[in-house]
Amino acid sequence: MTQLETSVACMMKVFDTYAGKEGKPDSLTKAEVKALLESELPGLLKGAQNQEDLDKLFKELDFNGDGEVDFNEFMVLVASITCVCHGRPCKK
Amino acid sequence: MTQLETSVACMMKVFDTYAGKEGKPDSLTKAEVKALLESELPGLLKGAQNQEDLDKLFKELDFNGDGEVDFNEFMVLVASITCVCHGRPCKK
Repeated sequence: MTQLETSVACMMKVFDTYAGKEGKPDSLTKAEVKALLESELPGLLKGAQNQEDLDKLFKELDFNGDGEVDFNEFMVLVASITCVCHGRPCKK
Repeated sequence: MTQLETSVACMMKVFDTYAGKEGKPDSLTKAEVKALLESELPGLLKGAQNQEDLDKLFKELDFNGDGEVDFNEFMVLVASITCVCHGRPCKK
């Protein structure tokens, strides 16, 4: 496997591990998203270059809503967090 | 770094390596996307469970157009390919 394939496999494994905790096994509840981000991206979140944008991103997630996050949305979320934390330009 | 953070870092590195080849350094041209997918996701693409959906995804990319793919879009693309190759349910 190439490095990128290993990375994709890891992201899928992390997604599946948390998605399996409650509700549908192929999507994350907002509570699962929160637990995942806090446990699996601690260094990235802690070192955020723009804490304000990060807070905004979290607020937009609406952790108390009943929306669910599928694998595609999860990847977008991780990408958005990465962009904010590294101060990378990303279209909205 | 957690496994997920290592994966995100790897995806960013692969993106940057290919994005730097031509045009803007913070986005991929369609030619760069094609080169990246063929070199970095060979096993995933080869083992696709649904080759028809994969062909469709590639056609939708319009490799001859002049659109550019930023990091966020790149993550969505990789997620979509992963879903198609593994026969995972993903919202469009």
